[in-house]
Amino acid sequence: MNYQFKLLKKDAGSEARLGKILTPRGEVNTPVFMPTGTQATVKALVPERVRELGAEIILSNTYHLYLRPGHKIIRDLGGLHKFMNWNRPILTDSGGFQVYSLGALRKITDEGVMFQSHIDGSKHFISPEIAIEIQETLGSDIMMCFDECTPYPVDFDYTEKSMDLTIRWARRCKNAKRNNNQGLFGIVQGGVYPELRKRGVEEITGIGFDGYALGGLSVGEPKEVRQEIVEGITPLLPEDKPRYLMGVGTPQDIVECVGYGIDMFDCVMPTRNARNGMLFTNSGKVVIKNARYRNDNSPLDSLCDCYTCKNYSRGYLRHLFMAKEILGIILNTIHNVRHYMNLMERIREAIRNDNYEAFKKTLNSKL
Amino acid sequence: MNYQFKLLKKDAGSEARLGKILTPRGEVNTPVFMPTGTQATVKALVPERVRELGAEIILSNTYHLYLRPGHKIIRDLGGLHKFMNWNRPILTDSGGFQVYSLGALRKITDEGVMFQSHIDGSKHFISPEIAIEIQETLGSDIMMCFDECTPYPVDFDYTEKSMDLTIRWARRCKNAKRNNNQGLFGIVQGGVYPELRKRGVEEITGIGFDGYALGGLSVGEPKEVRQEIVEGITPLLPEDKPRYLMGVGTPQDIVECVGYGIDMFDCVMPTRNARNGMLFTNSGKVVIKNARYRNDNSPLDSLCDCYTCKNYSRGYLRHLFMAKEILGIILNTIHNVRHYMNLMERIREAIRNDNYEAFKKTLNSKL
Repeated sequence: MNYQFKLLKKDAGSEARLGKILTPRGEVNTPVFMPTGTQATVKALVPERVRELGAEIILSNTYHLYLRPGHKIIRDLGGLHKFMNWNRPILTDSGGFQVYSLGALRKITDEGVMFQSHIDGSKHFISPEIAIEIQETLGSDIMMCFDECTPYPVDFDYTEKSMDLTIRWARRCKNAKRNNNQGLFGIVQGGVYPELRKRGVEEITGIGFDGYALGGLSVGEPKEVRQEIVEGITPLLPEDKPRYLMGVGTPQDIVECVGYGIDMFDCVMPTRNARNGMLFTNSGKVVIKNARYRNDNSPLDSLCDCYTCKNYSRGYLRHLFMAKEILGIILNTIHNVRHYMNLMERIREAIRNDNYEAFKKTLNSKL
Repeated sequence: MNYQFKLLKKDAGSEARLGKILTPRGEVNTPVFMPTGTQATVKALVPERVRELGAEIILSNTYHLYLRPGHKIIRDLGGLHKFMNWNRPILTDSGGFQVYSLGALRKITDEGVMFQSHIDGSKHFISPEIAIEIQETLGSDIMMCFDECTPYPVDFDYTEKSMDLTIRWARRCKNAKRNNNQGLFGIVQGGVYPELRKRGVEEITGIGFDGYALGGLSVGEPKEVRQEIVEGITPLLPEDKPRYLMGVGTPQDIVECVGYGIDMFDCVMPTRNARNGMLFTNSGKVVIKNARYRNDNSPLDSLCDCYTCKNYSRGYLRHLFMAKEILGIILNTIHNVRHYMNLMERIREAIRNDNYEAFKKTLNSKL
C-alpha cells in the first residue's frame, strides 16, 4: 500500500494535529489547504507558481472533468497529472457535491444519480462504481467516495435516509476500487444532526478508508451550527487517519477547525475572491476596487512575502481590476493563495510549538 | 542626449538593417517587435515572463493611460515603469490612432482634438503639447508625436490637409519636449499617396526627430497597397535613425517590411489572437478550439522552445479554451509572443549572415 498517513504530534492544549500524508507523488504536510483546480487548472496560475506559493496538493473535480474534456481523453493524454503539468498529489472530489448542486437537473436512486450536464444538457449517469472508475482513470492520488450531499435546511428523516444511502455507496466504492496506488476517503454525512453524524462515523469507519471527510457542511448552515458539528464529531474519527473538512472555508474557519482536529481543507474562496477583487490580508479584507486605493503606493499586505506584494502597489492592482485586465486576476490569485498557504505554515508551526490556542487568539484579534 | 541609435549593418541583398537602440533603461536590438501593453500590462503576462520570452521593449498607450488610471496617478505611483514593474524601455503611442478610432466621438481642430472617453463618455482635450506632457509624466523611453491618423479609403485632398496638420503638430511636439532622457519619434502620414508620403518624409525629417514612424497604415488598405508605400518610402528615411512601421502586423508582413528597411514593429495580433485561440506556429495557424485537437498529445508547435510547447499538449490547450479557463489565455499568449520574438531573432540572424532574401523565401514557403 503506497498511501500512508503519519500523525507526528498533537498540540498540548487543543485537538490540533501535525501530520504527513505520504503518496507516491510526494509528501503533504498537514494541516493542509488544497487550492482548487476544478477543471484541471488552479484558475489563472501556471502549476509551477502554485507549487512556489507553497501548495503540496491540489483538488480537482471528477464531475467537471468527466463532462469536459472527459476522463478518457485525459487518460489518452497521459492522465490528469501529465495533462495539467502538476506532478504532485491531487485529490479528486467524487462529484457528489456538484451533482447535488444541480438541483432539479438530477434524480437520485439507490443505483446512482441520473443528471443533466450543466454545459449542454446531455444526460449522464454516475454510480459509486462509475465514480471510482472515473477517478482511477484520471489517476488522482486521493479519491473520494461518491456521496449524497444534503442541503441545509433538511429534516431529520430525509437526512437519515440520505446518510444511509451514502453509507451503502461508500461500501460499493470500496469494493469497486482496483488501484492500490490511490488512497480512498470515506465521507461522513448526517447534516446538522449529531446523532446521525455519530452513527455515520461508526458505519463509515467500520467499512475502513484511508482518510475520513466531513461532507455536507458549508452548504448554508449557520457557522455556529457547523462548528458544533465539527467540534463534536472530529474527535470520534480514528486518530491514525487524516480528517478532511470539505469545502471550508475562510481563514477564521480553518483556524477554528484545525483546533477541533481537522487536517485537510479545500475551498474556492482564495481563488474566486481573487477574481472578484476581494483580497485577504494580515490586517483584514481589502476590496481592491475601492477608490481609496487609487493612488495607494503601498503593497497589498506589507506582511506578505508573495510576488504581488513584493512588486506591485495597491494603486496598480486597483487599476488592473478597473481595467478588467487578466494580470489583475493573476496577481490577486497569487496573493490570496499565498495568504492561505502562509496561514497553514503558521498553523503547523504553532502546533509544532505546542501553542496553538495562543496563536489562534493572536490571529483572531488581528482579523 | 541619452537616446541613441546605432546602425550595425545592412543586409547584402535587401534593405534589411541590423541595429541597436540605446536608452538609459537598456538596449533594444533591431529589427524589433514590441509586444503591446496598452493599459500598462501586456495582457495575461507578468512582466518577468514578457522579458523571458525575449522582449526588450514594450509599447504602452498614452490615450488609455491618460483616461485610466490617469497619468498623474501613475506619476504619484512612481512612473509607468515602476507602476507596472517593467524596468526596460517602453515606447508610448501618442494617442493619435486611438482618438482616430473613436470616429464620431471626436472633433479635430488645428489646436488639438476634443473627444469623449470610450469608458464613461466624459469630455477631454488633447493637443500636441498635452500629448507630450502626458508622455513625459508617464516617463516612457520613446515618445511619439501626436498625429492625425487618416482612415482608408480617404481622398487626396483630405489626406493632404490632414498630413499638413500632422506636420504642424509634429513641430509643436518637438517644441513642447522638455525631457532629454526620452526619445521623440516623428510620424509620417500621407495615406496611400506616394507623393504626399514623400513630402511628409521631407517635412518631418526636416524638423528632426530621434526616429521616424510610418503611420496611417494597417487601417484597412489592401496589403499590396501598404507594401508599395512601405517599399517606396522607407528608403527615403534617414539611415541613421530607427524606422518604425506602426501597428503592423502578421509574421509575413513583418518579414516583408524588414526587407524594405523597417526596424520596429508593434501589433496586438500575437496577444489578441492568443485570447481568441488563434495560434501562430512554424507550420501555420492553429485554431485551438477545433475538435481535431481534442485528444492531440503533441505540443502546439514542436519547433517552438516556449514554456507552453515544452509542457502542454494541444489537447490540454483545447480543453482550457473550451472551458474558458484563464490559464488557456496565459499559455496561448506565452506561445504567440514567443513565436514573434523567435521570428525577430531569426530575422536578425539572417541579416547578420547577409542572407535575408534566402531566409525570407524559406520562411514564406513554410507558411
